Amino acid sequence: MLDFSFYSPTEFVFGKGRESECGELVKKYGGSKVLIHFGGGSAVKSGLIDRVKASLEKSGVPFCELGGVQPNPRDTLVYKGIELAKSEGVDFILAVGGGSVIDSAKAIAAGTLYDGDFWDFYSGKAAIEKALPIGVVLTIAAAGSEGSGNSVITKEDGMLKRGTGSDLLRSRFSVLNPALTQTLPAYQTACGATDIMAHVFERYFTNTTEVEITDRLCEAVLLTMVKETPRVIADPDNYEARANIMWAGMVAHNNIVGVGREQDWNSHGLEHELSGLYDVAHGAGLAVIMPAWMEYVHNHNVMRFCQMATRIFGCSMDFEDPEATALEGIKRFRAFLKSIGMPINFAELGAKEEDIPILIEKLGIGDGKRAGFMELDRNDVEGIYKLAVKASL
Amino acid sequence: MLDFSFYSPTEFVFGKGRESECGELVKKYGGSKVLIHFGGGSAVKSGLIDRVKASLEKSGVPFCELGGVQPNPRDTLVYKGIELAKSEGVDFILAVGGGSVIDSAKAIAAGTLYDGDFWDFYSGKAAIEKALPIGVVLTIAAAGSEGSGNSVITKEDGMLKRGTGSDLLRSRFSVLNPALTQTLPAYQTACGATDIMAHVFERYFTNTTEVEITDRLCEAVLLTMVKETPRVIADPDNYEARANIMWAGMVAHNNIVGVGREQDWNSHGLEHELSGLYDVAHGAGLAVIMPAWMEYVHNHNVMRFCQMATRIFGCSMDFEDPEATALEGIKRFRAFLKSIGMPINFAELGAKEEDIPILIEKLGIGDGKRAGFMELDRNDVEGIYKLAVKASL
Repeated sequence: MLDFSFYSPTEFVFGKGRESECGELVKKYGGSKVLIHFGGGSAVKSGLIDRVKASLEKSGVPFCELGGVQPNPRDTLVYKGIELAKSEGVDFILAVGGGSVIDSAKAIAAGTLYDGDFWDFYSGKAAIEKALPIGVVLTIAAAGSEGSGNSVITKEDGMLKRGTGSDLLRSRFSVLNPALTQTLPAYQTACGATDIMAHVFERYFTNTTEVEITDRLCEAVLLTMVKETPRVIADPDNYEARANIMWAGMVAHNNIVGVGREQDWNSHGLEHELSGLYDVAHGAGLAVIMPAWMEYVHNHNVMRFCQMATRIFGCSMDFEDPEATALEGIKRFRAFLKSIGMPINFAELGAKEEDIPILIEKLGIGDGKRAGFMELDRNDVEGIYKLAVKASL
Repeated sequence: MLDFSFYSPTEFVFGKGRESECGELVKKYGGSKVLIHFGGGSAVKSGLIDRVKASLEKSGVPFCELGGVQPNPRDTLVYKGIELAKSEGVDFILAVGGGSVIDSAKAIAAGTLYDGDFWDFYSGKAAIEKALPIGVVLTIAAAGSEGSGNSVITKEDGMLKRGTGSDLLRSRFSVLNPALTQTLPAYQTACGATDIMAHVFERYFTNTTEVEITDRLCEAVLLTMVKETPRVIADPDNYEARANIMWAGMVAHNNIVGVGREQDWNSHGLEHELSGLYDVAHGAGLAVIMPAWMEYVHNHNVMRFCQMATRIFGCSMDFEDPEATALEGIKRFRAFLKSIGMPINFAELGAKEEDIPILIEKLGIGDGKRAGFMELDRNDVEGIYKLAVKASL
């Protein structure tokens, strides 16, 4: 096990109707004027934004608001948010939405207290030294941003998707009400589930040995997703299945399952260029990329893929041909993704084989290598994208 | 899944030699004068206390010290600690030791800022409203007190063992260096492992249904303990196994594996009277009580015991006779405890059957019932103690 630090100070407030506690929670964590940040129409139409406002009013906390966050949240709205937060004298950002809204809120929180261009944090030019406190009311189980210190923003000029991270971006509180996710379309639910599983797999495939505790914790989340996701796809109103997935989504990404081990993140990296270029859902892109990545790298440590195959996907270990077990596990993962309605190849995603050189270019790999479970050079990246082009069951 | 709040704000600093960061960590969390609290000779003899002092000195943080914490920590030393903290103007308590030291430090932290008798928090007369911040350097994987808001203290007058809990008692930071546990005697290591497994089982046996995520997380910790504990008993210097157990011990008890479900805690309750009366190690008492409790209650939900038997102890499910599978799982748990050197009955623990009425009396059950997985009245409690008297493999 590698040395590590683990810090997850967020107060998670989980259960039906608990968005009504927002006002008191903002006050508890020192907010005296709030920017409510949200996305499109559903949070408004469902009455959620009104309930959040009512809670703030009841607690006597004034607020302003900024909606319009898109999936793959844009730098352009972040600039607007920073301007608004400064002009209104806001001291607390309340994100009401999913990963895109939370990531956008984190960018505003850091950018408001920074003299330069907030994009410096995403381009690697500057480190975050201070940020306004944020709170979250989560509306989809997916990104894990409610429990992480990470944020991913897309620069509209060139559709460049980049991330940053800091403990300062961890939310003070996150309200998780599974009932809010019951109205999500099946496709979005499945995209979220895929993202959750990918967050775990990026940690599961490691070169660090003797990490039984985190291996088993990773498997706990994956087994939960394999059981619960088909239940919500079949029955969107299943509160219990929604609740299990919502908590699994937080556990998957606050790093409790990933400490003390090398992690990968190449599937996320390769996917970011896909969703950046085509503006497709991140989870859908991952469904196409992740099994292709697994196929490409499985011989780097075939036993680890056998572990996945037997422990997660119920394969019987073929002791005479471990590679057959490894490949069967990957096949079952892809079949699982297909069964919940995810695309599994470029065509189903709306991506084009001829754009692969553009994807590689945007990835900025050059003649270098990407670190991870298996080091990848540009030929490897091309190989993975090509496997993703033609993937089938 | 039940509604819940989850809050674990402690910064965990994990790895070799990281006690050298104590001084900076104390400063980071606002300490300007420290009471170092510790137990007997081993932390002094090993040079650990000197290393902690050197770190504080290097950071320019003055300190005073109070050693002498015993296993099953006493109220008498807590009173001394409170007096010392007040007279020295201490604003930070640094616990260097295991669960007993940490629990004693928590009592001092709350008692120092309270006008009345600190025992009020343990007798249920008062709730904790403020406490000095505490930090931890952990020397044994066991109690989970490094990540919990709980504390258990024994009143010397009558050897009455009682607990309290508050988020205010959660440590600001906990240094977890697995190498510090390599010098522990095998018996103490095994007692710690038993305590960790018991913390999980107390959460695992629940009447709440459809809690797949926490079920699987519980199983992750248990599977880790089943794999790693025999490795450290066979090879005390095995850093990797020690590291897995140390992190498992935190995960077992900061409640990440127990949120959203009813919990039990009757084995802990029945054990507290044993270790209170005979001053035996808590883990050893649990090794005697917990399998007996399982035997007594297994028919309350035989399928849950089958789940334990098959998922944790590798039993093959007997679909014609589920109870046989359930009992086989309990048998394997007891055999596991015996294999790591734990007592499994009253005689091996040094307890006496004729004291059972005293144990029941001290438990204070009267004509009432104890809530939990299965409600227990005094006859049930007597039945469990009696199963524990004569237990064998």
